[in-house]
Amino acid sequence: MPTFTPVASLKGQSVASATQFSRADIDALIQLAIQMKTYIEAGNTIDALRGRIMTPLFFEDSSRTLSSFCAAMMRLGGNVVNFKVETSSVNKGETLQDTVRTLDSYSDVLVLRHNTEEALQQAMSVATHPIMNAGNGAGEHPTQALLDTLTIHAELGAVDGITIALIGDLKKGRTVHSLLRLLAHNFSLTKVYLVAPAGLGMPAEVLASVAADIEGRGIVVQTACELTPDIVADCDVLYATRLQKERFVASAAADADAMAAFEAARAGLLIDKARLSHAKAKMIVMHPLPRVYELSTDIDDDPRAAYFRQMRYGLYMRMAILYSVLS
Amino acid sequence: MPTFTPVASLKGQSVASATQFSRADIDALIQLAIQMKTYIEAGNTIDALRGRIMTPLFFEDSSRTLSSFCAAMMRLGGNVVNFKVETSSVNKGETLQDTVRTLDSYSDVLVLRHNTEEALQQAMSVATHPIMNAGNGAGEHPTQALLDTLTIHAELGAVDGITIALIGDLKKGRTVHSLLRLLAHNFSLTKVYLVAPAGLGMPAEVLASVAADIEGRGIVVQTACELTPDIVADCDVLYATRLQKERFVASAAADADAMAAFEAARAGLLIDKARLSHAKAKMIVMHPLPRVYELSTDIDDDPRAAYFRQMRYGLYMRMAILYSVLS
Amino acid sequence: MPTFTPVASLKGQSVASATQFSRADIDALIQLAIQMKTYIEAGNTIDALRGRIMTPLFFEDSSRTLSSFCAAMMRLGGNVVNFKVETSSVNKGETLQDTVRTLDSYSDVLVLRHNTEEALQQAMSVATHPIMNAGNGAGEHPTQALLDTLTIHAELGAVDGITIALIGDLKKGRTVHSLLRLLAHNFSLTKVYLVAPAGLGMPAEVLASVAADIEGRGIVVQTACELTPDIVADCDVLYATRLQKERFVASAAADADAMAAFEAARAGLLIDKARLSHAKAKMIVMHPLPRVYELSTDIDDDPRAAYFRQMRYGLYMRMAILYSVLS
Repeated sequence: MPTFTPVASLKGQSVASATQFSRADIDALIQLAIQMKTYIEAGNTIDALRGRIMTPLFFEDSSRTLSSFCAAMMRLGGNVVNFKVETSSVNKGETLQDTVRTLDSYSDVLVLRHNTEEALQQAMSVATHPIMNAGNGAGEHPTQALLDTLTIHAELGAVDGITIALIGDLKKGRTVHSLLRLLAHNFSLTKVYLVAPAGLGMPAEVLASVAADIEGRGIVVQTACELTPDIVADCDVLYATRLQKERFVASAAADADAMAAFEAARAGLLIDKARLSHAKAKMIVMHPLPRVYELSTDIDDDPRAAYFRQMRYGLYMRMAILYSVLS
Repeated sequence: MPTFTPVASLKGQSVASATQFSRADIDALIQLAIQMKTYIEAGNTIDALRGRIMTPLFFEDSSRTLSSFCAAMMRLGGNVVNFKVETSSVNKGETLQDTVRTLDSYSDVLVLRHNTEEALQQAMSVATHPIMNAGNGAGEHPTQALLDTLTIHAELGAVDGITIALIGDLKKGRTVHSLLRLLAHNFSLTKVYLVAPAGLGMPAEVLASVAADIEGRGIVVQTACELTPDIVADCDVLYATRLQKERFVASAAADADAMAAFEAARAGLLIDKARLSHAKAKMIVMHPLPRVYELSTDIDDDPRAAYFRQMRYGLYMRMAILYSVLS
Repeated sequence: MPTFTPVASLKGQSVASATQFSRADIDALIQLAIQMKTYIEAGNTIDALRGRIMTPLFFEDSSRTLSSFCAAMMRLGGNVVNFKVETSSVNKGETLQDTVRTLDSYSDVLVLRHNTEEALQQAMSVATHPIMNAGNGAGEHPTQALLDTLTIHAELGAVDGITIALIGDLKKGRTVHSLLRLLAHNFSLTKVYLVAPAGLGMPAEVLASVAADIEGRGIVVQTACELTPDIVADCDVLYATRLQKERFVASAAADADAMAAFEAARAGLLIDKARLSHAKAKMIVMHPLPRVYELSTDIDDDPRAAYFRQMRYGLYMRMAILYSVLS
């Protein structure tokens, strides 16, 4: 095994927010993840975390993030306790803190996903081992933001200087909140397009939290309701997120107007072969997946479609994080 | 660790159908499985697949096949990501192909069980790693057919020349479809009894697919509705499968006639001490399990009852397959 | 790795009852568990059970016991097959014995939790590998009794001579049944308080089973309905268990009297800062968790609150047991 150098500042630390990392940390995580990717894809295996145990504590379903974390731990030689929230003592009236104390007793690291923002701090206040935030309500999803940054770096060669469009439900999508915070805080972006249907724009508090970075770095921010040819042509990265049909219907009693609004939003944000024809030759399309209506399968074979490769980068970024936290 | 020689033609290949294997492959898998059984049962452990990851993707429940595959992977030193279909992005509208692409990003091998026949090809068309077919609708269940063949060989010393009765729901039981195809294609059977209640006989398309082999090898095929003393006395292998009570009831509004037909079918196919008294001294009773009404517990201690040993052979056949595919 | 000496009498044995262990076995398990705790907490890992497989078979939910057993097996280098009862062949009409035979075919050890007492013997009658009883109905929970004994020894320096109060639902709580049997059978306790609301006292058959030990060792047994200051002041160990609100309501049509009785019982058994002010400086509060109303969080930071440390002892006791059974 070659020498994999852990990112020292992560040792024993929880991963709570996309903004906790310095630029040096992010650069080091990217290099470590790329080094591991090269090594594993050459057919090697890593045994560094043998005997170490991770326990995921997922109060919200997310099979992709869960599988990715589990595979990352196992590919480092560690193992995973399969804790099922739905049959746990939560049903006997146990508090989140007591459940966390229990799993913390047996584990070297916990991975928490919860439908509220407060849960993360509650869990961290009683745990004696690091906690990986795998999504806290409409809050953050920091490992997704890191793997997205790795994807941009690996595919385009650099993150500084890019123009990126964040597209879709920017209101509830914690993925794009974390990504915007991490990028604005650490990279000299040229321009950010925020492309969302009316009522689903980036929340004011997220914008406020990045205002100083945006101004300090001179990043241009532009909002839009539709993914126009001009925006497509200008971007190095089109980052699409899931449009949630159920939200439209629920908010308007399923009437014809709401459906029409939804259809219009879908059509105006869809990335398909026609829309991608306006894009540069060297750029990428990203999506945290699962996709529903946002990406047409007619672009799946386009080399600029990076969303499947993005999942592989996710595995290696989570390996780099767990390795740095635990070794 | 002794030298376990993988079956070279399986390297990196999916296991889709019982008919994809040559006779040489089957013989080599049988020898490898027996070698591994001897080694493990002597108290040794194997570490050949350390760092490798298998992800099962089970859209249909099958705790036995799932447990067997998981134990096989772990006994080779590999590990298993516990993916739950029921909480996956399938519920957010994700296609099978995208789910497969996700798990394929993290894994070295997938194990797929699905309620439709088409799913397997859909999955294989997008996966970059091998897929093990653990049952595709009423289609195939090739690893079951291989472990059944191993059981016959190990218990009786040879598969060529045997007389076998396939008993029960031959219409929907993919186990017996795969087994008949594999045996007829590769072994010079003497005779095959197809013993099924009216309406549950072997499908015409399965019979058509083995017609050339049956004729070429001069195998006698005889159908029956009841497991008569003559058939029992003639067989080297009685292979029973589950009779599904719910099917009878559902198809006839639970009326008295249907129940009577079901009871008659049950009684006429049941393998118990009385019926087994007609059998040869050297023969075996097999069943893929779970059993419901087909096997009486009064034969469990009879040395010819091979159905519990059959499960152990299953573990070692799946070890031989995974080892050959991944090493 | 240092030499961990397995407890020889456990080799290949099932763990069925708290009374199967000799005093020498218990002392040896305690020493082994403490040795492993010291070793693991110093950052080391153990690889002794590499290639060995444990399969939990949980017909009742118990995420804490399940997680603890899984982590124990993994921290010894073994692995765990994730068998889900709820999607198993039990739903296709399979008997417990056949399900046990299946998992026994693939595994080196099973862990069984079931809602009936008989299940354990049924399982042991067909299994060829050891079975760990993780709770059989209102019967026993022997590994909990062992870990409780370890906790007392490690926290107080000795088990002989202590005065202990068992508090709460002593009727249905198998934890306190197993603990009383194990302690009375092996240790010269000074005094046992049985503190339970009316109708929830220790069952006559449990008392009968320990009568000879109680008399032979001259242990004083005293019952009470409330945890009075005198009892608190006298005890080295306050062992609280969960009061099950649902039981009260169900048995009395949710009427006002039942609720009043429940509230009175709660208040009279609650261990909080005020009640703990009567306790000795060197004593411990234990609870198998989850807690609902029995322990106030206002004592969580009191050094005498041992219930979170008790979970860690549980991990190491289960490691000592599995290591002795399997190595």
